[in-house]
Amino acid sequence: MNTRRGLVLAVLLVTLAVAGGLASAGDRGVGGSTTAAADKGVTAVNAAAVAPAGERPGGCSVIDRRMDLYAVELPKDPVTNQIRLGYGLTPQTASYPGPLIEMIEGQCLAITLHNQVPQATLEQLRLDPNHPIGVSLHTHGVKYTQMSDGTVHSNSFVPPGGSRTYIWYAQPRNTNTGAQGTAGYWWYHDHVVGGPHGTPGIRSGLFGGLVVRRQGDPRPDRTYVLAFGDRQTINLRRSSEADTCDEQNPVPGPTCVVAKLGEKVEFLVIGIGDDMHTFHVHGHSWADTRTGVIEGTGALANSIPIIDNKTVGPGDTFGARVIAGESVGPGHWMLHCHMQFHSDLGMSTTFHVLDENGAMTAHAGHAPANPVQAAPAGGGQDAPAHGNHG
Amino acid sequence: MNTRRGLVLAVLLVTLAVAGGLASAGDRGVGGSTTAAADKGVTAVNAAAVAPAGERPGGCSVIDRRMDLYAVELPKDPVTNQIRLGYGLTPQTASYPGPLIEMIEGQCLAITLHNQVPQATLEQLRLDPNHPIGVSLHTHGVKYTQMSDGTVHSNSFVPPGGSRTYIWYAQPRNTNTGAQGTAGYWWYHDHVVGGPHGTPGIRSGLFGGLVVRRQGDPRPDRTYVLAFGDRQTINLRRSSEADTCDEQNPVPGPTCVVAKLGEKVEFLVIGIGDDMHTFHVHGHSWADTRTGVIEGTGALANSIPIIDNKTVGPGDTFGARVIAGESVGPGHWMLHCHMQFHSDLGMSTTFHVLDENGAMTAHAGHAPANPVQAAPAGGGQDAPAHGNHG
Amino acid sequence: MNTRRGLVLAVLLVTLAVAGGLASAGDRGVGGSTTAAADKGVTAVNAAAVAPAGERPGGCSVIDRRMDLYAVELPKDPVTNQIRLGYGLTPQTASYPGPLIEMIEGQCLAITLHNQVPQATLEQLRLDPNHPIGVSLHTHGVKYTQMSDGTVHSNSFVPPGGSRTYIWYAQPRNTNTGAQGTAGYWWYHDHVVGGPHGTPGIRSGLFGGLVVRRQGDPRPDRTYVLAFGDRQTINLRRSSEADTCDEQNPVPGPTCVVAKLGEKVEFLVIGIGDDMHTFHVHGHSWADTRTGVIEGTGALANSIPIIDNKTVGPGDTFGARVIAGESVGPGHWMLHCHMQFHSDLGMSTTFHVLDENGAMTAHAGHAPANPVQAAPAGGGQDAPAHGNHG
Repeated sequence: MNTRRGLVLAVLLVTLAVAGGLASAGDRGVGGSTTAAADKGVTAVNAAAVAPAGERPGGCSVIDRRMDLYAVELPKDPVTNQIRLGYGLTPQTASYPGPLIEMIEGQCLAITLHNQVPQATLEQLRLDPNHPIGVSLHTHGVKYTQMSDGTVHSNSFVPPGGSRTYIWYAQPRNTNTGAQGTAGYWWYHDHVVGGPHGTPGIRSGLFGGLVVRRQGDPRPDRTYVLAFGDRQTINLRRSSEADTCDEQNPVPGPTCVVAKLGEKVEFLVIGIGDDMHTFHVHGHSWADTRTGVIEGTGALANSIPIIDNKTVGPGDTFGARVIAGESVGPGHWMLHCHMQFHSDLGMSTTFHVLDENGAMTAHAGHAPANPVQAAPAGGGQDAPAHGNHG
Repeated sequence: MNTRRGLVLAVLLVTLAVAGGLASAGDRGVGGSTTAAADKGVTAVNAAAVAPAGERPGGCSVIDRRMDLYAVELPKDPVTNQIRLGYGLTPQTASYPGPLIEMIEGQCLAITLHNQVPQATLEQLRLDPNHPIGVSLHTHGVKYTQMSDGTVHSNSFVPPGGSRTYIWYAQPRNTNTGAQGTAGYWWYHDHVVGGPHGTPGIRSGLFGGLVVRRQGDPRPDRTYVLAFGDRQTINLRRSSEADTCDEQNPVPGPTCVVAKLGEKVEFLVIGIGDDMHTFHVHGHSWADTRTGVIEGTGALANSIPIIDNKTVGPGDTFGARVIAGESVGPGHWMLHCHMQFHSDLGMSTTFHVLDENGAMTAHAGHAPANPVQAAPAGGGQDAPAHGNHG
Repeated sequence: MNTRRGLVLAVLLVTLAVAGGLASAGDRGVGGSTTAAADKGVTAVNAAAVAPAGERPGGCSVIDRRMDLYAVELPKDPVTNQIRLGYGLTPQTASYPGPLIEMIEGQCLAITLHNQVPQATLEQLRLDPNHPIGVSLHTHGVKYTQMSDGTVHSNSFVPPGGSRTYIWYAQPRNTNTGAQGTAGYWWYHDHVVGGPHGTPGIRSGLFGGLVVRRQGDPRPDRTYVLAFGDRQTINLRRSSEADTCDEQNPVPGPTCVVAKLGEKVEFLVIGIGDDMHTFHVHGHSWADTRTGVIEGTGALANSIPIIDNKTVGPGDTFGARVIAGESVGPGHWMLHCHMQFHSDLGMSTTFHVLDENGAMTAHAGHAPANPVQAAPAGGGQDAPAHGNHG
């Protein structure tokens, strides 16, 4: 069908268009790129052959794309000594957040999840000794049947050493059928590790960003996934752990948010855990729309809010799209939770905007010195919580 | 006036159009329907004659509709032993949440509230022994004068054994006058029981949903009112109490959220109490608009966010409109607060999507087993957080 | 340039158009007006000559307007005995919140901040004895370079006795360049006092409202800045301190929210501190848009939510625009946080709507009696919430 072919072509264009151009070209700032997955297509098809197959949701007549995702155990958190798990396109590249997955409306994606987390680790994370042992993949925004729900009751999870194929359908907007479309900024996460809502799995690192684009959507130069979570963390880190950029040679990643002047940057902001947060970035603002920009003109376009601070609760996601340094110039722009005691405890990082040549300008001073975190093993300083903030 | 007549006609059409078709036909899933109120119109007029009459807000020249509402004491909560109150179209059908009230813009509704809650119960709920004893009806979204505010300072509440008529005007949008309209998803609640903000009244169950529709709005097949509140509750219940659906013979109601494949379902989500929550449903999403759908086309329609998770604070309300099982099929779809410790403590229910014939498909597994709630009498296990703000 | 001249003219029209007409004509309800600043232009230019000059952000080719802002120490809070600081257009008129600053898109504003807060007071507010001593001006929404960021790391703060000029550019929407515009409801605040996020500065009172208008935006008759913050406060006050209106002779201000029937009133709602809140006003509602009203018609205009309750987290700001008493009439309309224990503890004030003659109607009863706050010195009863959910 012509339309379907057009979509697939567009997907290929996406992966080319987003190739970055900083110190580490080709890395879009999040621990991996789905371009890699496309290269691994053949292998993935084989893996799917042995994995229990998910059902296709209505409208997904053909699988357009396949990829593998590995759930593995990572080294413990260097500050809190907590268990860390991660999803990766390969076991070696697993990270928290996991790889950014990009889709385009119309696409049907089969993801084979391989659970390589040791059984003993999963047992240790259980809230209840009768809870089953496994890892899953639950996603927001796109369409999937109960077989790809990633929950215990639907039996759609993966025991240690096993694998399972989940099918996601980025259902397109269709004004004839009333389908509203699935384009948006979403996230995927475990829903099984440790309890029926995957709380210990998410807390350990089993989450990542999903962006579904619509044909014609503006394309970013860089995407950063920023999960605002418990213990005043961004991507599970805080204080000096949250910003590890080397000023001389910044390598974009979950703890190094950097762009050159004029680059189009999108932040995929995710709320995780038990707490409310507000996402704020200095010097930059975005439109409170699906795409983060205002498209169109007229009275209604005129009335769309432009914001620079947004409440994000657990499970909420949105895209904040900015042009790096536009009007305001290069510099070390603070990016933090505006809940004051959260930022004071280190829930803050920096959006480093380099000049056109990729150098940090001298006059902008030094990056903010985040307080060094005094963190007892096994927990860390938690929210003094609305307690005594007199 | 022609326009007014057109509106009244439309209201009658509403009550016909929303008649459901599941096991218990005619019940739209919320403990009662305003259709019943229409039948009781004559009685209501008599009652109003003896009740102190509210003032009509500007624009409400004629009362289009009358109904009675009874505030009664219900059996104590079976788990926590807390006092439970409810509003009902009759004393026998009172429930928490109270009956869904539907209006259409242009309509003027007179509601006579009869306070049948025993004086001793109201005294027991007081936070302050000098606070007056009574029950009231305060609403959101529509227009009312101070006489229908339902507050202590305006003396617009009802002592035990008394009655009072409140007048609500669903002011229409009028681009000439600049009136913005009152169509939306709202709630009504007590504002007097126990304290000047009705906190103990709301906590005991004195709240319900109000939907104001605009002519031309899409009509749902079913409406469920879901109040997200303290102690990790949905409609004041959690864990197994929150989902009491009988799989063989589901009866739609506040603790049984069920629909057939393809039915248009709207969730009226209400935040109550002292806490923040996030509303999430698996497999389904909605537009972040007044109606929950995207109407129109073009660049702006294209930029409206589609979401499947939304922050709701106390007093916030919104409509999440979905097509049951669309693309994703029948199944037991989890519906929960995404604040992880809330869902882990049982703030979770199930959106049961039956097949076209009204049967639960076999392959979808069993409904999620909510943890059985270990609940000490007189309180129950509270949030380890948000501790003792009773 | 013609366009620029048109903008400047429009600014002058703004300041004329918003002159109020209540008991204290000319006061728009917030401790000062930028009209005063315009009168002081010549002085401000001189002051700027001796203050370190900020950089101009891109697009700001000429400074259109200059003003002075003084940071001073005010008398301690009468209830809690906490330190109070304020910004003022003069040292004598400093207040919390500080003066409302209004801009129009296209305008470039230079503000010279004079730090008159005693060094000993700033030392007392430090969270860390190594933190530098100073006061700053950080703003939301508009454009500024690192030199006007108001942060420690950019060295853009003011030591005691010093002054510094900050430059803000209300970048206009430009559909050619893709600039999205800066029109909106924002706030400005200290970012340095006591710690790297200015938490003790904000908590003491160093914040104020900023409104950026777009040409053609609807103009209000009155603007009230309402900061919802910690300890269940509105503008740092609660209970009887939050509503000090004299019914016979109301003087609009941060603790007296009053208007005549039919006046266009905008509430600039700001979230500050460590906690979530929900803003609710009785009898009135607004559109959830940039301007608080719906402009335009058609299916999309039709789908914009009208709300009367909105979640506001720290750093969030929005404009709630209402017509005083429209349809509902004069009266004492409650305005409160709908988080129940917040309102019960006194996070509530009154929107006093007078009749056309500026008198309070008799039938509306008395203003709500806020509970008298039993407040121990140095703290007050804090939220017992958000305890131990680690």
